[in-house]
Amino acid sequence: MRLGALEAGGTKMVCAIGDETGTIYEQVSIPTTTPEETVPKLIEYFQDKEIAALGIATFGPVDVNPASPSYGRILDTPKLPWRQYPLLDTLKAALHIPMKLDTDVNGSCLGEMTYGSAKGLDSVMYITIGTGVGVGIAIGGRLVHGMLHPEAGHILITPAAGDENRCICPYHTSCLEGLAAGPSIEKRWGAKAVDLVDKAEVWELESEYLAQAIMDFILTVSPQRIILGGGVMHQMQLFPLIRRKVSEKINGYIRTPELADMDSYIVPASLNDDQGILGCIRLAELSLQE
Amino acid sequence: MRLGALEAGGTKMVCAIGDETGTIYEQVSIPTTTPEETVPKLIEYFQDKEIAALGIATFGPVDVNPASPSYGRILDTPKLPWRQYPLLDTLKAALHIPMKLDTDVNGSCLGEMTYGSAKGLDSVMYITIGTGVGVGIAIGGRLVHGMLHPEAGHILITPAAGDENRCICPYHTSCLEGLAAGPSIEKRWGAKAVDLVDKAEVWELESEYLAQAIMDFILTVSPQRIILGGGVMHQMQLFPLIRRKVSEKINGYIRTPELADMDSYIVPASLNDDQGILGCIRLAELSLQE
Repeated sequence: MRLGALEAGGTKMVCAIGDETGTIYEQVSIPTTTPEETVPKLIEYFQDKEIAALGIATFGPVDVNPASPSYGRILDTPKLPWRQYPLLDTLKAALHIPMKLDTDVNGSCLGEMTYGSAKGLDSVMYITIGTGVGVGIAIGGRLVHGMLHPEAGHILITPAAGDENRCICPYHTSCLEGLAAGPSIEKRWGAKAVDLVDKAEVWELESEYLAQAIMDFILTVSPQRIILGGGVMHQMQLFPLIRRKVSEKINGYIRTPELADMDSYIVPASLNDDQGILGCIRLAELSLQE
Repeated sequence: MRLGALEAGGTKMVCAIGDETGTIYEQVSIPTTTPEETVPKLIEYFQDKEIAALGIATFGPVDVNPASPSYGRILDTPKLPWRQYPLLDTLKAALHIPMKLDTDVNGSCLGEMTYGSAKGLDSVMYITIGTGVGVGIAIGGRLVHGMLHPEAGHILITPAAGDENRCICPYHTSCLEGLAAGPSIEKRWGAKAVDLVDKAEVWELESEYLAQAIMDFILTVSPQRIILGGGVMHQMQLFPLIRRKVSEKINGYIRTPELADMDSYIVPASLNDDQGILGCIRLAELSLQE
């Protein structure tokens, strides 16, 4: 069965055709400019592909509640041309096939649960650390929505000594994204993460901030596995540091078989940066079951 | 239909008989000492009450996974006589009726969702602030379990200036319970919360810590309502302070109708401290549907 996948990002739209086994047949990338310019190209790409359904994982904030009249509408994004844009309705009106939409990070979480290392688990967190920090969550086999959807990239963090005024988030004085995303690393250390590989203090500090957040996530949603993706996490030296610091912070307060095996508990994304697009394939498949 | 309810706490076991409308017919309290002494009294209480099922909400950590062989077993609690005690299996062997068990705070969350102010909502947090801090969570209509169950009373908090060494949690250098539960208030200010009502600085600080945690909870699980119960929250002056500080911390980063109406979003428990026992009644009813 041919399924369409749209990973709608702030800089590019990745469109792909695949099937429910997780095979991707083809993939293109279209720059994200304005809805007027970008969306007709998406429609043009998908319309002659003979796909049975389309799954969409998009930047947010976005209405992800299928029961809402504005399901699939982009909300108050800082990307002004997209504010209040009815992404799902527009695509539905043009393509006339079943569709299902979620956040980009929930999509990646679903991709890992369907085709990746989190297969068989039902409570999983996917955290991406790149130009921003995003968090996708599944609990009891379902992606978390609630009032809106998780925005846990902005949880509060205690800054290290000297870092009290280093958070670059325009909203928060000391949040995870503002202290630990790529732009924050670059501003603090004067170079991009990839050019700082040998500076141990960079990764000590980065892992401290990520470990604080992960500790809070473990205590709050009790995931069975935590998957870390995004550009910053290509720095594999972060993984042992994060695992050790998370264990130190929990300090035996909760004991589970999962936490006793940190190497299997906090893991890199397993799908070669295709977790997002594969999550869209799964969303497309799910749209046919509804 | 007569249903049994057992709210198993660290100092007392509340046993009650009620029905699915949320009516409580009778209620007794039995001191929690050792399983050998306490559990026979529970069995004696329930065995001639002609109940169709029993719902149990218990202190933790506890195995809350119905598919696990140790479902209903108390895990590594500091209450040593109860460590590894098979609470559910023991009661089942004696009473031979359907039972369902969850954590004390998940029970209270369920009580509020079934009979209280959170009726009709499907994503809710219940936070109790008393001798400890406990957090029950429902997402998409289901109580959150995951790897274990939420233990979000211990999430990390940034201490106020001067409070850096004031966390009294034996596990964590700066967590919510260690900074904001009743015993911490008493140790910091030299008096119990009820005797500090007129000291504005007590409630400024207390609300700051709670607001930090609530901000993180909102961003992580996106609840539709947050209910605050427990002894400390009988200090109603905390509510406006918490609401204001949560709004200030979110600072417009997420905008929802719920957050625009803080008086309805962060609310006191609505069931007269019966939320726990009523949650057990609902668990009993649910056990009959499985």
